[in-house]
Amino acid sequence: MPKGQPEYVPQDGLTTRQRRNRPLLMVHTGPGKGKSTAAFGTAMRAWSQGWPVGVFQFVKSAKWRIGEERALRVLGDSGEGGSVTWHKMGEGWSWIQRPGSEENHAADAAEGWAQIKRDLAAERYRLYVLDEFTYPMKWGWVDVDDVVRTLAERPGTQHVIVTGRDAASELCAAADLVTEMGKVKHPMDNGQKGQRGIEW
Amino acid sequence: MPKGQPEYVPQDGLTTRQRRNRPLLMVHTGPGKGKSTAAFGTAMRAWSQGWPVGVFQFVKSAKWRIGEERALRVLGDSGEGGSVTWHKMGEGWSWIQRPGSEENHAADAAEGWAQIKRDLAAERYRLYVLDEFTYPMKWGWVDVDDVVRTLAERPGTQHVIVTGRDAASELCAAADLVTEMGKVKHPMDNGQKGQRGIEW
Repeated sequence: MPKGQPEYVPQDGLTTRQRRNRPLLMVHTGPGKGKSTAAFGTAMRAWSQGWPVGVFQFVKSAKWRIGEERALRVLGDSGEGGSVTWHKMGEGWSWIQRPGSEENHAADAAEGWAQIKRDLAAERYRLYVLDEFTYPMKWGWVDVDDVVRTLAERPGTQHVIVTGRDAASELCAAADLVTEMGKVKHPMDNGQKGQRGIEW
Repeated sequence: MPKGQPEYVPQDGLTTRQRRNRPLLMVHTGPGKGKSTAAFGTAMRAWSQGWPVGVFQFVKSAKWRIGEERALRVLGDSGEGGSVTWHKMGEGWSWIQRPGSEENHAADAAEGWAQIKRDLAAERYRLYVLDEFTYPMKWGWVDVDDVVRTLAERPGTQHVIVTGRDAASELCAAADLVTEMGKVKHPMDNGQKGQRGIEW
């Protein structure tokens, strides 16, 4: 993307600097590949700025995200850049370890969201990656209105990225940036299986 | 993206393992945000697998990609994972340093593509990120047919990601995966300027 100038300058009373540093709510949705990888790519930028980054992984499989988790752990521990804290279902929230009843998954997701709310209130991170967080909303495990209200009222300069298909329209309406990853062509359509180094 | 099974199993005589490890040509295009960040996120996965990663940055501004470059340099130097080699216009290819005539840019882009061809022939990397490489093709600085033919004939198991708007239809036709990043909503539309930690 070219580093363009904005298409117009709003009459909002903000200075350029204030406008530049406005906290963003970003949503990566759609059926195509790249929603989460783009979020983790943004996390590299945030890390490089020295920002504390919090990742909240609302995805079940332990195999997924191992590459990103390892990379961000190495970055966070490198002594350069910012810190990286990785919250994963199945550990603190025991997404995987509990018997797989829907009630438990719902409770785990709600617990995860409660942790995010606490961290937002405490301004613990500068960038939040809420990975696959659209699903607990879609499944009714986390209340969309509560999410939208909490994010709208978050203090300070905390950027938030939500990834996953089927993002709620209320969330998109509240977001500053929405990217729809469209699947034009995907190898799985031709019988290609997911592979290491590419999918995880 | 769920780690799904393929929708059908092709009668191509390949084993599941062969099919799983097939080298992929991936294209991230479209007007939305996330084309390059998703490519760099994939680079984290490749690094985690211990793969040598080559990044070829066909973008002009020195400010762009500094976060990704720093993060991937720290990862490549960490002693874990694979190596990372970063080729940038303005250094070896002197994209920035020469006077900005179109002839020079075209020559630099052609020189960059010649380096990629040599590296592909030598199977130097396992993942190639050709960042913003659609533009030199669009501007006629690099021949699309040569790119498509070279990539189709590349030896071994070398994955390639091409990013940028307006990807050539021939390139998309040759690709295994094409994701169109669609801009649903972007803060620059509302006068928001690009900001550190998010755009670079």
